[in-house]
Amino acid sequence: MTPGRPVPPPLNLRIPLDETAAGPLEGRLAAARGASSATSGLVGLTVARRAPRADDVEIDIDFCGLCHSDVHATRGEWGTQNYPLVPGHEIVGRVSRVGSDVKDFQPGDRVGVGCMVDSCRECESCLDGLEQYCERGLTGTYGAKDARNGDAVTQGGYASSVVVDRRYVLRVPENLDPAAAAPLLCAGITTFSPLRHFGVRKGHVVGVVGLGGLGHMAVKLAKAMGAEVKVFTTSESKVSAALELGADDVVLSRNEEAMAAENRSIDVIIDTVAAPHDLNPFFRTLRRDGALFQLGLPSEAMPPVNPGALIRRRISYAGSLIGGIAETQEMLDFCAEHGVVSDIELVGAEQLNDAYDRMVAGDVKYRFVLDTSTLQEPSERADA
Amino acid sequence: MTPGRPVPPPLNLRIPLDETAAGPLEGRLAAARGASSATSGLVGLTVARRAPRADDVEIDIDFCGLCHSDVHATRGEWGTQNYPLVPGHEIVGRVSRVGSDVKDFQPGDRVGVGCMVDSCRECESCLDGLEQYCERGLTGTYGAKDARNGDAVTQGGYASSVVVDRRYVLRVPENLDPAAAAPLLCAGITTFSPLRHFGVRKGHVVGVVGLGGLGHMAVKLAKAMGAEVKVFTTSESKVSAALELGADDVVLSRNEEAMAAENRSIDVIIDTVAAPHDLNPFFRTLRRDGALFQLGLPSEAMPPVNPGALIRRRISYAGSLIGGIAETQEMLDFCAEHGVVSDIELVGAEQLNDAYDRMVAGDVKYRFVLDTSTLQEPSERADA
Repeated sequence: MTPGRPVPPPLNLRIPLDETAAGPLEGRLAAARGASSATSGLVGLTVARRAPRADDVEIDIDFCGLCHSDVHATRGEWGTQNYPLVPGHEIVGRVSRVGSDVKDFQPGDRVGVGCMVDSCRECESCLDGLEQYCERGLTGTYGAKDARNGDAVTQGGYASSVVVDRRYVLRVPENLDPAAAAPLLCAGITTFSPLRHFGVRKGHVVGVVGLGGLGHMAVKLAKAMGAEVKVFTTSESKVSAALELGADDVVLSRNEEAMAAENRSIDVIIDTVAAPHDLNPFFRTLRRDGALFQLGLPSEAMPPVNPGALIRRRISYAGSLIGGIAETQEMLDFCAEHGVVSDIELVGAEQLNDAYDRMVAGDVKYRFVLDTSTLQEPSERADA
Repeated sequence: MTPGRPVPPPLNLRIPLDETAAGPLEGRLAAARGASSATSGLVGLTVARRAPRADDVEIDIDFCGLCHSDVHATRGEWGTQNYPLVPGHEIVGRVSRVGSDVKDFQPGDRVGVGCMVDSCRECESCLDGLEQYCERGLTGTYGAKDARNGDAVTQGGYASSVVVDRRYVLRVPENLDPAAAAPLLCAGITTFSPLRHFGVRKGHVVGVVGLGGLGHMAVKLAKAMGAEVKVFTTSESKVSAALELGADDVVLSRNEEAMAAENRSIDVIIDTVAAPHDLNPFFRTLRRDGALFQLGLPSEAMPPVNPGALIRRRISYAGSLIGGIAETQEMLDFCAEHGVVSDIELVGAEQLNDAYDRMVAGDVKYRFVLDTSTLQEPSERADA
């Protein structure tokens, strides 16, 4: 309103092309599985990975977790996609080659890549080590235009190799099972970050809503942080599974009496449910200064929030998006120290389409992981 | 679900009667204005104040602010009330008598009373100095059952005197205009508390939604804390008023273009609007880790929150309720240091009913304050 106010700088600026693009190393072809269209399912593909630049790390991928977002993306459920599209952002492998300026990784190192492979590196969030909130938008590990690579669309980890700038490569401690560590790169960090941001420690009570890929990681991580953990589920059949994972208590969230008994008993809730659901009964379980972090983004509107619950106990309803690179490394080291990995079911390339159907049906405990040694030779080609 | 879980302790326990109730001092009658029924409007009443107990402070009231909640309560719009009911919880006066154990106040001291006159004094919130979140429920300054006074219903500050336990009495610095300081006890602390809780300081940008009694205090307090302040209003007519109050900028919140220009520009929003309104456009104005504090409680449902906005910037949607006693004292001292008081319109007892109508119409800049010297003699009697 005040005349002459400076207009905020435009976001989504183009990031300059990496000047080291023409390096001495040649690019390689990767065997992959991906979608050639929204209805193709996952088919055999070849990805031409770029020649490693001075700051690049080339990774031979051993395992890649299957995230529910992979299903949405390959099926075009989250808007228009460029096909062919190779999904996968829970990548664990070993370094095969490094660019000339890479000092902190060498061939043979056990490494991982999560949900992002670049960001602007200049905005306040990037400088704060919170690249997931990059003000110009992070570059996703697949399906994203890579501004520093001529706007080529990134191709993910259902593949035999990938090339990623060293700044977005994580060290995976050798004592972690590499297949079971893969889901830490998305499901792990997405739940670790809000738990750490809240400052969860011994003495806290953590609530976990939903017991899927994210929920089961939240239970394990919160327990490892020393908290008491209560799982909220709508499904009686998940009670014993939750207790087996280490939950101290399970509450059937559609049972009003059970929910009322939890009134004012919880410090922080990690809500992993991506379908619309009423949060007001959960707010009532929170103590003063409690917080509910919603991690899943429903495609339809959530029921209205009753602000009275927030006002009467100074409660926060917050969101959280994956985690920064430094925090992801901290999470991996924390998991190594506490022996935390995902519960997984290993699948081969031929089982991917079935695995997707089972994920949609909620039939997995708790994460599928692709064994990339089962990938076969190319039938169609995607450049990245 | 786990068998044998201990049941949480019951809340709303009865608080023991004050054993010093039979003190050497006698109770007095106070001239007052209040409602004798939901439809009576405000009429002349007499309140029999209790005999000051050992820990009590008796206050000759000089001024009492008119809060919108007084209108709702006296008109029975917030559920069943006990009548007659004397409203008023923005009280400023001078100490007239003190109980035998009161060392920190003496007759003649300039003091104030806000929204509460007791709490359990034992729960975690009370022990933390956040009595407003007392787990057994605070005792409101009017219309509340006073457990330590035989469940007598409290009667508020539209009266010539009041008797309050010393723990809930504030010192009002002598350099503050006492009439203009009265609204600090509710409108002031209600906005000060979330600003302080967020840690507002120089360099922050504070948004204020709504420019009524609370909103105008939020502008003054945030400016005094060193922040840049933007006022959001639906009303073009309030632009100049907001700038006069010290706002750096005013945004017409129904103008989509103006709202879009504020994208990611604000650290914390103090939302004082008590009618249902869509918060999603405001979330988009917040920076990473920003927070929106909602202070008003609409009687109808708010539009749904889009969790995407919260997730993408780790934004918090929070509530906040008045403030604790220690924090209220801190606020009064802060206001004395920075010369902050409310903009008020002083009214006499005969103008109260008109003032209520004008408050409902939003026709006040920004707070009415009753001059209690205009109170007349009793026509009906309420005990407290």
